[in-house]
Amino acid sequence: MNKNTLLYAGKAKSVYTTDEDGLLVMEFRDDTSAFDGKKKEALARKGLVNNQFNAFIMEKLAAAGIPTHFVKLLSPHESVVKSLTMLPVECVVRNRAAGSLVRRLGLAEGQELNPPVFEFFYKNDALGDPMINDAHIISFGWATEEQIAGMKALTLAVNQVLTKLFDEGNLILVDYKLEFGLVGDQLVLGDEFSPDGCRLWDKTTLEKLDKDRFRQDLGNVIEAYEEVGRRIGVTFTA
Amino acid sequence: MNKNTLLYAGKAKSVYTTDEDGLLVMEFRDDTSAFDGKKKEALARKGLVNNQFNAFIMEKLAAAGIPTHFVKLLSPHESVVKSLTMLPVECVVRNRAAGSLVRRLGLAEGQELNPPVFEFFYKNDALGDPMINDAHIISFGWATEEQIAGMKALTLAVNQVLTKLFDEGNLILVDYKLEFGLVGDQLVLGDEFSPDGCRLWDKTTLEKLDKDRFRQDLGNVIEAYEEVGRRIGVTFTA
Ligand SMILES: Nc1ncnc2c1ncn2[C@@H]1O[C@H](COP(=O)(O)OP(=O)(O)O)[C@@H](O)[C@H]1O
Ligand SMILES: Nc1ncnc2c1ncn2[C@@H]1O[C@H](COP(=O)(O)OP(=O)(O)O)[C@@H](O)[C@H]1O
Ligand SMILES: [Mg+2]
Ligand SMILES: [Mg+2]
Repeated sequence: MNKNTLLYAGKAKSVYTTDEDGLLVMEFRDDTSAFDGKKKEALARKGLVNNQFNAFIMEKLAAAGIPTHFVKLLSPHESVVKSLTMLPVECVVRNRAAGSLVRRLGLAEGQELNPPVFEFFYKNDALGDPMINDAHIISFGWATEEQIAGMKALTLAVNQVLTKLFDEGNLILVDYKLEFGLVGDQLVLGDEFSPDGCRLWDKTTLEKLDKDRFRQDLGNVIEAYEEVGRRIGVTFTA
Repeated sequence: MNKNTLLYAGKAKSVYTTDEDGLLVMEFRDDTSAFDGKKKEALARKGLVNNQFNAFIMEKLAAAGIPTHFVKLLSPHESVVKSLTMLPVECVVRNRAAGSLVRRLGLAEGQELNPPVFEFFYKNDALGDPMINDAHIISFGWATEEQIAGMKALTLAVNQVLTKLFDEGNLILVDYKLEFGLVGDQLVLGDEFSPDGCRLWDKTTLEKLDKDRFRQDLGNVIEAYEEVGRRIGVTFTA
């Protein structure tokens, strides 16, 4: 497989066309950003850690019957994925209150949410990824009723699989963000699942082992990502 | 009917118990507030204008089959209403983009929304009435799935009735906020419908004839409310 032209360079990943129809290469860079890109840094090894972390999770999800774009690892920091027409929304599930929800609704950080809360955000950096609801999505044509229902069902199905997986590593999956896209009219999980887009706390100490370490300058960011990976069975190779 | 003790004094209205079981008196005061109570003023005649405006609308809605708390006018600035256990959410329908939606989603003011957008807000002044979705309502126990579906259906049914009514007065119903409550397990429209809680624009000139005149210091606030009332057939008596 040959990597051809750069299709899109996002805040953390770059996407390339390939010589195989319908396949892309997703390169995980070391670039790390937070607060709508206002805080930026390159963290050594992040690209390879997130690429291999994501590959492990995508394979677990596929094994559980969730359609994903992941095809195979191409190199330590690159994967082959199916080309998707991305839907411009982010799907968030929260098992515990943290981050923006704590501020918006005046909750205590760590408060259990039962049932878990599902939220849609409009993927738009210039607007700061505002929270939206089903009616906005329909009115602005960002997805159909059927796709909305599908995204909710798949995002909650992911919660079943991953809550258990992380729990077995003595970790709490506090919340996470997923992005979906389409191949034809099939809804497929795209983008990535890594500690960059979720919150993971040690079950015993409640220590944060995710991107909040970067946001809050807690240090040892990538060491924490690797620790999480090790606890759930990911092996990292450079 | 005797007005007994003050039950609750809100930002614009006061609610009193009465000597009749299940009935309250709602007093419409001249107090006007905006920006979560940060801007406040008493506007002469507002209480009586909104009380009689609301009575007219509630009767139109009842005639269209929508259950409301309105019983009868008691005085120029007071009405008798059924006592409701209020649900702590606000139901908003938007036919055109205005206000917070313009800022949140970067839209042009006045842009048509098709289909109209429905939004829930958590009624909480301290938090600035944040936008919420169905999942928050369920997870925090603010209403049941059935009540959520009922509020959406009734709020959109109100849109059918009022869009037409205002259109006949050469007015655009841009958006509006409703509050619902329960009598037993019946969902009932409570609170008020007046130019304090909606946006109404002249269809020809797009002149604002609602509380945005107060928010934006455009002057002639109550004159505009009365003009709207006259156009749809409300007669105001002092
Ligand atoms: N399978 C896919 N096909 C096409 N685009 C994808 C796929 N998976 C993810 N993407 C998009 O590629 C970009 C990944 O790079 P990232 O650095 O996360 O970008 P961003 O800054 O936009 O979040 C995202 O915009 C994401 O929506
Ligand atoms: N039928 C009703 N029974 C009980 N409470 C009501 C009823 N209708 C409205 N309310 C409540 O009474 C208050 C009305 O006063 P208002 O000045 O609008 O208060 P607020 O500042 O809380 O919005 C609101 O809190 C509203 O929810
Ligand atoms: Mg991204
Ligand atoms: Mg009110």
